[in-house]
Amino acid sequence: MIYLDNSATTKPFNDVINSFVKISQDYFGNPSSLHRLGGEAEKLLTQARQQAANLLEVSPSEIIFTAGGSEGNNLAIKGTVLQHKNRGNHIITTEIEHPSVSEAFQQMKKLGFEVSYVPVNHNGIVDVEDIKREIRETTILVSVIHVNNEVGTIQPIIDIGGLLKQYPKILLHVDHVQGIGKVPLKLHNSGIDLCTISAHKFNGLKGTGILYVKQGVNLAPLISGGEQEMQFRSGTENVAGIVSMTKALRITIENMEENVKKINKIKTEYINGLKRNSNITLNTPVEQSAPHIINFSINGLKSEVFIHLLEEEGIIVSTTSACSSKKQSPSKTLLAMKKSKEIANSAIRISLSQSNELQEVSIVLNAIDKAINQLGKVMK
Amino acid sequence: MIYLDNSATTKPFNDVINSFVKISQDYFGNPSSLHRLGGEAEKLLTQARQQAANLLEVSPSEIIFTAGGSEGNNLAIKGTVLQHKNRGNHIITTEIEHPSVSEAFQQMKKLGFEVSYVPVNHNGIVDVEDIKREIRETTILVSVIHVNNEVGTIQPIIDIGGLLKQYPKILLHVDHVQGIGKVPLKLHNSGIDLCTISAHKFNGLKGTGILYVKQGVNLAPLISGGEQEMQFRSGTENVAGIVSMTKALRITIENMEENVKKINKIKTEYINGLKRNSNITLNTPVEQSAPHIINFSINGLKSEVFIHLLEEEGIIVSTTSACSSKKQSPSKTLLAMKKSKEIANSAIRISLSQSNELQEVSIVLNAIDKAINQLGKVMK
Repeated sequence: MIYLDNSATTKPFNDVINSFVKISQDYFGNPSSLHRLGGEAEKLLTQARQQAANLLEVSPSEIIFTAGGSEGNNLAIKGTVLQHKNRGNHIITTEIEHPSVSEAFQQMKKLGFEVSYVPVNHNGIVDVEDIKREIRETTILVSVIHVNNEVGTIQPIIDIGGLLKQYPKILLHVDHVQGIGKVPLKLHNSGIDLCTISAHKFNGLKGTGILYVKQGVNLAPLISGGEQEMQFRSGTENVAGIVSMTKALRITIENMEENVKKINKIKTEYINGLKRNSNITLNTPVEQSAPHIINFSINGLKSEVFIHLLEEEGIIVSTTSACSSKKQSPSKTLLAMKKSKEIANSAIRISLSQSNELQEVSIVLNAIDKAINQLGKVMK
Repeated sequence: MIYLDNSATTKPFNDVINSFVKISQDYFGNPSSLHRLGGEAEKLLTQARQQAANLLEVSPSEIIFTAGGSEGNNLAIKGTVLQHKNRGNHIITTEIEHPSVSEAFQQMKKLGFEVSYVPVNHNGIVDVEDIKREIRETTILVSVIHVNNEVGTIQPIIDIGGLLKQYPKILLHVDHVQGIGKVPLKLHNSGIDLCTISAHKFNGLKGTGILYVKQGVNLAPLISGGEQEMQFRSGTENVAGIVSMTKALRITIENMEENVKKINKIKTEYINGLKRNSNITLNTPVEQSAPHIINFSINGLKSEVFIHLLEEEGIIVSTTSACSSKKQSPSKTLLAMKKSKEIANSAIRISLSQSNELQEVSIVLNAIDKAINQLGKVMK
């Protein structure tokens, strides 16, 4: 099997699973308990928070452990909006966000907040000037995805952070779920107030994630109660999941440079090969895109049919993002990039990880050719 | 070690951990993905939902997988209150709820909702008539804990459900986190609209739980996005955690009768022994209390000191609930039962599981005697 859907989810590292098992068996205490078993679990939790903070170059008290990317995005958005609703009722996001951001904005809109959607250019990139233009007296939050999950474009987060430093009352949230380990992003002193990552996108376990919350930023918790996680997220901590996520993060960050080099090489091979095929339109721009995502459309062919043909050859790719794939509506990001509905309906996403190999490329390209010929014949 | 803090958390069953590992390794696909790996994960998820539904005797579409008890309680309360705010702004709960319920109510109060707190009698039991008295035209939700987490009293949920059947616009939420596997509770057709359970209280893994949502009940999601979990709870499903929770639930429900018999015997031995000690006041009433929780106070002694003395003998007990233990404030439940502050400050909780043994009782009772003598001397 050649697995090319790493943006949907990744295979957990064996070391990550081993950590999870060890802690679930030997350190099962509730970190809030006053006895030794609680103390041991709490110690592991504190160490994990310190390690995650070191890896992300922030303070331990800025690390909030969550149950994943969707929770992180929702907590960042709803938490700040509800906390600061007296400051203003206007919030800004882009047209190419993950559903966990765009739907959270929709919910806030229903509660009476005003939402501005910033467009992207034909390459899928937001213009900082367009964000600036939307800023009002009443703006309290800007939320921008770092690496788009469908086409892999990189948004100018550092420039947006720089702009928003001039507006200290406006918080900046970044959905960094696809970027972590692939595209560097400095959190400290960059104007970013909140940043979401999710463990299962970097070979950690599902059900774990981190929300970075800059010192001094206040949130209304979605889950209140025992006041765990700096009071921003209550509930008995999933210590085994958290420690194993931190391990996955360490392996990811430590090997990032090497991995990115490897993945970039593979990506270039795919792009060169796909470009040679006249039936294919590349949707991912060559510039300002992440090393691991390649989005393309096969002219005139519905993507659902196509991915099943590739699957018969043992190749796993996806249509759009996993979270949107069952809706069978055309890619929102591609429509925002002003691609035609036909292109948006025939989009295929290849998403790589460090486990992929250069030798796979020719096998995949041949399988794509074969599938196009096969489908072409059927359609004639 | 004699572990007597099973209401804080339980040791996961080995079979549960094995399931988790197997699925994390071999079925790591994203259930939302259209390809085979996604399909396999989705199938496991569907089977787990069906099995959980069978075990709880409800429909699969009424099972919402969450990240635990605090999330379940918060989703039930905030989700219904925000969804139905146009119906009315009055909500009812009791004075003896878990922090994840009482804090959620506090947050709703800050948003402008009116909250009524129903008292308990000296045995820690709510009177259905007191709930009835609080009902207004504008009441939209009643939330009552089934088995209190500090003293183990059982609330008359079936009577409350019966009462509320006469008020079809008022939803009933039950925090069943301490009750599951210990005290039977019929969900179907009992007037209960929402019911929370948490896996790590029945030998499942932390970070997983279930919210039962009766067919036809609508909720505003706390986490919106990819519309997983009947659109009530978005985010890539923690399939390994969910399947292993369902396994823990099956083992728990299948052995419930036998376990409860065993635990009840142990509890009776503890109660008889503790009653013979003139330095001890029992706080858990003999009637209408769960088989696994025994709360008592040692006259004049601070509980923190006492639990550390027992720990030196290898015995793990707790002061109050884990989620409140670090606040070092007197037990809220005991104060609501009109116990003195001295009693509330010296409370010890023993909480049992099926792993405890009758032979442990005399060891623990002797250690308690020894600790009382030791502390008594120090204090003289």
